[in-house]
Amino acid sequence: MRDYACVGFLTDYGMEDGFAAVCHAVLARLAPQVRVVDITHLVPPQDVRRGAAVLADAAPWFPPAILLAVVDPGVGTQRRAVAVEAGSCALVGPDNGLLSWACEALGGVRRAATIDPSGGNEPASATFHGRDVFAPAAARLANGASLDVLGSPVEPSSLVRLPAPVVRRRGGVLETEVLTADRFGNLQLAARPADLLPGIEAGAGVAVWVRHERWAGEVRYGRTFAEVPPGQVLLLVDSAGRLALAVNGGSASATIGAQPGDLVTLEPATG
Amino acid sequence: MRDYACVGFLTDYGMEDGFAAVCHAVLARLAPQVRVVDITHLVPPQDVRRGAAVLADAAPWFPPAILLAVVDPGVGTQRRAVAVEAGSCALVGPDNGLLSWACEALGGVRRAATIDPSGGNEPASATFHGRDVFAPAAARLANGASLDVLGSPVEPSSLVRLPAPVVRRRGGVLETEVLTADRFGNLQLAARPADLLPGIEAGAGVAVWVRHERWAGEVRYGRTFAEVPPGQVLLLVDSAGRLALAVNGGSASATIGAQPGDLVTLEPATG
Amino acid sequence: MRDYACVGFLTDYGMEDGFAAVCHAVLARLAPQVRVVDITHLVPPQDVRRGAAVLADAAPWFPPAILLAVVDPGVGTQRRAVAVEAGSCALVGPDNGLLSWACEALGGVRRAATIDPSGGNEPASATFHGRDVFAPAAARLANGASLDVLGSPVEPSSLVRLPAPVVRRRGGVLETEVLTADRFGNLQLAARPADLLPGIEAGAGVAVWVRHERWAGEVRYGRTFAEVPPGQVLLLVDSAGRLALAVNGGSASATIGAQPGDLVTLEPATG
Repeated sequence: MRDYACVGFLTDYGMEDGFAAVCHAVLARLAPQVRVVDITHLVPPQDVRRGAAVLADAAPWFPPAILLAVVDPGVGTQRRAVAVEAGSCALVGPDNGLLSWACEALGGVRRAATIDPSGGNEPASATFHGRDVFAPAAARLANGASLDVLGSPVEPSSLVRLPAPVVRRRGGVLETEVLTADRFGNLQLAARPADLLPGIEAGAGVAVWVRHERWAGEVRYGRTFAEVPPGQVLLLVDSAGRLALAVNGGSASATIGAQPGDLVTLEPATG
Repeated sequence: MRDYACVGFLTDYGMEDGFAAVCHAVLARLAPQVRVVDITHLVPPQDVRRGAAVLADAAPWFPPAILLAVVDPGVGTQRRAVAVEAGSCALVGPDNGLLSWACEALGGVRRAATIDPSGGNEPASATFHGRDVFAPAAARLANGASLDVLGSPVEPSSLVRLPAPVVRRRGGVLETEVLTADRFGNLQLAARPADLLPGIEAGAGVAVWVRHERWAGEVRYGRTFAEVPPGQVLLLVDSAGRLALAVNGGSASATIGAQPGDLVTLEPATG
Repeated sequence: MRDYACVGFLTDYGMEDGFAAVCHAVLARLAPQVRVVDITHLVPPQDVRRGAAVLADAAPWFPPAILLAVVDPGVGTQRRAVAVEAGSCALVGPDNGLLSWACEALGGVRRAATIDPSGGNEPASATFHGRDVFAPAAARLANGASLDVLGSPVEPSSLVRLPAPVVRRRGGVLETEVLTADRFGNLQLAARPADLLPGIEAGAGVAVWVRHERWAGEVRYGRTFAEVPPGQVLLLVDSAGRLALAVNGGSASATIGAQPGDLVTLEPATG
């Protein structure tokens, strides 16, 4: 039995309807001692991939925590509800890949179990398992329950995983995928510095080509925004350790026009 | 004297201006021990009806709580400030109907009192009673004060109530009103399953006609989204126990084009 | 050593990316006992002036608190990271003027120090000092550290201050600046009631001219929205003690079309 410091809570419920608040209320009723930290409730509706990316970037910064995550287009179908242990955290959510990248970021799944709906608010609704299944399960874990009592053991290898985002070398270039665009318009790429081809080092020039967007340019591989003049694009390592395209004082997303999922090619600049 | 587990907090203050935060700060100063759960601060500005609907859906899920709700187009006029007891909760807000549906959902008002502005931040501003009147009153209740000390007793029947939303049978059909559209585009109707005409049971077909929108169709009365193909409209019981029009993997609001307040007619499908 | 009741937290991080949540997680790890009150995370990206205005309006309502504020276009440059004491609060953030108006509202800076990045998450990222420098410093203060241990003393007069917004009398009129437009469309002016020319008292008529917007009109200087008919503009004292243009049941921002920074002229109505 673990002692969790808090519950981190991520959904696509939005903030105007009271759905996230109702889950907070359920947690306050069933586990009044536990602190809840909202990660975000603004995952685009049913965008499991985006939810997985945000959760994975946030997870490693939590103290021992229960991470309650619900982006659940399959609610009411046969998709499993699961709880898993990874690193010093327990993760609770639908078995649709939402938890998979966070589990990797935390060092991999050690144990997993299904969540039996009969342990929550009865009868569970067909459409709101955040309230009726997942929040009650998180509360039980916060109260000291082990995974065993939530349901049946699950073989970790059977958990649904999202496909890894594109990071590949081919033909002498690095090809990778735009993972997210943040509020500032920074375009986070799936690749990390170690994926860069030899010859691309801090301060070097990088030729960037964004497919489908017809944007191409040579940019500096810098450490911080201010290394390029205002309005110019640069490549840097973002706060999650991934490569990102950014604009000093501006929005790379607006400048380049790329979307999550777009492919980006990086190679040493010839200039 | 009650022991309240938390304060649930709902306003139309938005999240960009610091208004809700200032109320949090007042609560942290006057009742530092109490936990505050934000329900929403994104009620459309001055939309009392929408605020009442969100509050009513959330209220029953709270442990014994003070529900602090401020959507207050009449601030600075003679409208009363009130505190009421309903179920295991105390509700604090303007007497403009905002609290009325939540009180019904909690089993009806047992006791009520006005809130004397002199008990709060003095002098109370003319435009920000959330900070100067309502949050201080909620703090006093959280600290163990009874309604009596906040102001003068109020006859519960004198409290302002919002008109009940349309739910009526006529000419062999059920006519009801779109109550809200949530973030996913689900259209929550005022009617509940018990209001349906005999002959409409789970799995049945239902003829739906949305007035003013010229949308009409036959839909399945299902239990969950996945019972119809992606993109198709269905009728289901939502997590608050009301009927709702939804689209599997899509937005009923976008598909049908209806708004809160629009009238919807439901009758057994002839097919 | 002070005993702070909570951390007030303001950024331009938005709410969809998990950046604010990661700072919450760092605080929960390093100072688990401290309560965190979100002021707002919706400051427009890199808008230091807007962040300073919201922080200054909220600060005086907090109990003794640490105010953690990050709007930081210069992250990764040589701009200083600072902690300052003002009133009963400690403020933590970049030395770019963001804290300056709040410090004034709290009675002025008593002591200040730089924040040595080596006291936080090591190595500090180049782009996310909220997580790596500022939140850890706030946690240390919450745990009882004094400013001394965070870095080196700073002469308060050397701290960056934002220029005061325009409030001046000239040619027999008061000229001032739109400071913010809130969610309701109220246009907060920089001037306060004491800045008004003699002859403008409650109930009087005021001639208003908004430069660049070509809007001009005579409005009532009232106490609350309801003193004018619905849809009409009035001048009042807002909840932060500043003059504001408002519309009863509507949006002054939409009616007048003004933006923060626009100049407004006020003089006694001739009517």
